[in-house]
Amino acid sequence: MAEPFITLTSDFGTSSPYVAAMKGVILSLNPEARVLDLSHAIPPQDVRHAAFFLASALPHFPPEALHVVVVDPGVGGSRDILYVEVGAQRLLAPDNGCWTLLYEGRPPVRVIRLTERRFWRHTVSKTFHGRDVFAPVAANLSLGLDPRLLGPSAANWVRLHRPTLTAGPDGVLGEVLFVDGFGNLVTNIPGEALARHAGVRWVKVGEHDVPQFVGTYAEAPPGTLVALVSSDGWLEVAICQGNAARHLQAGVGTPVRAGWEAPPKG
Amino acid sequence: MAEPFITLTSDFGTSSPYVAAMKGVILSLNPEARVLDLSHAIPPQDVRHAAFFLASALPHFPPEALHVVVVDPGVGGSRDILYVEVGAQRLLAPDNGCWTLLYEGRPPVRVIRLTERRFWRHTVSKTFHGRDVFAPVAANLSLGLDPRLLGPSAANWVRLHRPTLTAGPDGVLGEVLFVDGFGNLVTNIPGEALARHAGVRWVKVGEHDVPQFVGTYAEAPPGTLVALVSSDGWLEVAICQGNAARHLQAGVGTPVRAGWEAPPKG
Amino acid sequence: MAEPFITLTSDFGTSSPYVAAMKGVILSLNPEARVLDLSHAIPPQDVRHAAFFLASALPHFPPEALHVVVVDPGVGGSRDILYVEVGAQRLLAPDNGCWTLLYEGRPPVRVIRLTERRFWRHTVSKTFHGRDVFAPVAANLSLGLDPRLLGPSAANWVRLHRPTLTAGPDGVLGEVLFVDGFGNLVTNIPGEALARHAGVRWVKVGEHDVPQFVGTYAEAPPGTLVALVSSDGWLEVAICQGNAARHLQAGVGTPVRAGWEAPPKG
Repeated sequence: MAEPFITLTSDFGTSSPYVAAMKGVILSLNPEARVLDLSHAIPPQDVRHAAFFLASALPHFPPEALHVVVVDPGVGGSRDILYVEVGAQRLLAPDNGCWTLLYEGRPPVRVIRLTERRFWRHTVSKTFHGRDVFAPVAANLSLGLDPRLLGPSAANWVRLHRPTLTAGPDGVLGEVLFVDGFGNLVTNIPGEALARHAGVRWVKVGEHDVPQFVGTYAEAPPGTLVALVSSDGWLEVAICQGNAARHLQAGVGTPVRAGWEAPPKG
Repeated sequence: MAEPFITLTSDFGTSSPYVAAMKGVILSLNPEARVLDLSHAIPPQDVRHAAFFLASALPHFPPEALHVVVVDPGVGGSRDILYVEVGAQRLLAPDNGCWTLLYEGRPPVRVIRLTERRFWRHTVSKTFHGRDVFAPVAANLSLGLDPRLLGPSAANWVRLHRPTLTAGPDGVLGEVLFVDGFGNLVTNIPGEALARHAGVRWVKVGEHDVPQFVGTYAEAPPGTLVALVSSDGWLEVAICQGNAARHLQAGVGTPVRAGWEAPPKG
Repeated sequence: MAEPFITLTSDFGTSSPYVAAMKGVILSLNPEARVLDLSHAIPPQDVRHAAFFLASALPHFPPEALHVVVVDPGVGGSRDILYVEVGAQRLLAPDNGCWTLLYEGRPPVRVIRLTERRFWRHTVSKTFHGRDVFAPVAANLSLGLDPRLLGPSAANWVRLHRPTLTAGPDGVLGEVLFVDGFGNLVTNIPGEALARHAGVRWVKVGEHDVPQFVGTYAEAPPGTLVALVSSDGWLEVAICQGNAARHLQAGVGTPVRAGWEAPPKG
């Protein structure tokens, strides 16, 4: 197996010293560790955003990776920190559900609650477990520590779920799940509906009709509002070379309707 | 030769999972690959910005680097993806001209059109070739794949050009080519004109006179509007410790005039 | 000793090619160098921000690290560039005080003024010493260059100091030192005062009373204005899951008062 590496995902931004401090702690314990930034631009305390991000990105990683996730509004409170093995992925994450979209029908192999303080920094700040718990534990794991030494197995944990679709006779009601950096709106409506023979005929985001369905952004002129299948397989609404979120004033939670017949009036 | 490494340049931002997914795909195929972020803050779909960025940064890299560039408004459409060797640099880039400022009088050694799908991901999304084409091809190249296997040679490709100067009897008309993170305005007027004996006597950005010529920002008090030679050798207009783009309401394409004699009235 | 690595901290942002160019120069000279981003989001020319950042982050790094800091409003002027050994850390930094909060009562072991141009790039731009001086010197040091060859020892240098507290009979007057990415306000008032038996009873930021003292953000409902001890041990004012800087219109330099007795009226 190749040299292990540690990925970092946080809501810290990089103008603050927090990410750098975590890197320092990891490299102090294991100067050979390879540290890889995934994102430090998760919106502050936005556990749902983190959950979508992780569910989309992590399945592409090989088992050599250990993913450290610090989007942690409950830091220092009663929430636990978990070591998780799910699918081929290993994570350290707060027990706030941020990792639970990674398994849909595929339960985690192992979930451990971090209690063994000997693998943490000597002094643990109540407000920065990224530096004082996550980083030293990650470094120790990268050095070969058996994760079973970190604490007891956990039998339950906080779970996030994708919001469910509401089905109607002529279509479904879903919502925007994620807004990407281009302002594209990814929904919880399966994109395959767009492709099937008897598929979606119309899409509305809030009160806005989406006039065109395309396979990719380049199929319509810049500025066109389009519906397409996202790279993860969901119905996505975009403005070609534009920003749909800004233009439609839409965001996470904005209702999206898709129908099989002619669109409703009004 | 040292271990190869892969650089990433995109307009994805880092709040979205796209960069992370690319890193995962690369590391899944070659867990030993060294992945280096150049930028994920290219403005969305801004091929000209990417072109300037690459022309300024890439010549400093050693031949061990493979540069993956995903600023790709045409993703999934009819545009091709190219493997390019130009100077000492190797790139994977969409055929949209983003790499073509790298050669000025120095033609590329090799340009290959990616057609061999066996080096791509099994399923290729129409909207995310970064993950599904660029990343696996980069990983395969880092493992030693002969680039000639990627597809046929290409004889022509989209070219971007620096906008040309308009010469007049008493000076030149150019424009702002690039606005950097400090708000400094880099133009297409060669900076050496400022330094030569019979050099530039006056500079105007739009309707604003630039009152002072300096060698570096520290030569004038904070807040002063100055002209100087950029670190790449172009005429640059800056506000010392300030933001010229914001203050002058200038951006890419704003006309810049520089003259050899006394400045014109008005 | 493990493979050396080079960290980068700058105010360049990443939409500009400057960080990428530095990485290219380093890797051209030492393709084996491990380069680690700490931050490129230091606010432009903000030496105090950089000083706080470095003082908070660098002590966590092992001695294998060489820290390259380019927050350098005086670039190309009369300021020098220093190689510094302080505590277990080694830095290359402009002589503008940005590194001097790293020693409080612990003088630097070695300070060298960079004068030996043979370790710089052949042509040195007046506006981009990051690429033309810092990067090649860092690469040379990572290859084992004896730092004493870089130039003569320096006996004095620019020093920044934390602003001092003003003590009164019933409390202290301090100020906001740093605003982090969450909008939390870190002050120059030692946080231990909050914890001690006869500790702080009230805190005011500007004219705003801080109504609650907590151990961590999760102890009060979202939206609550709280005082707590920062992860570096300073009095911090935060809004739980909110942005105190924005809400209180506070920033670096905003006065903060903390008192031992009942709060003053008005």
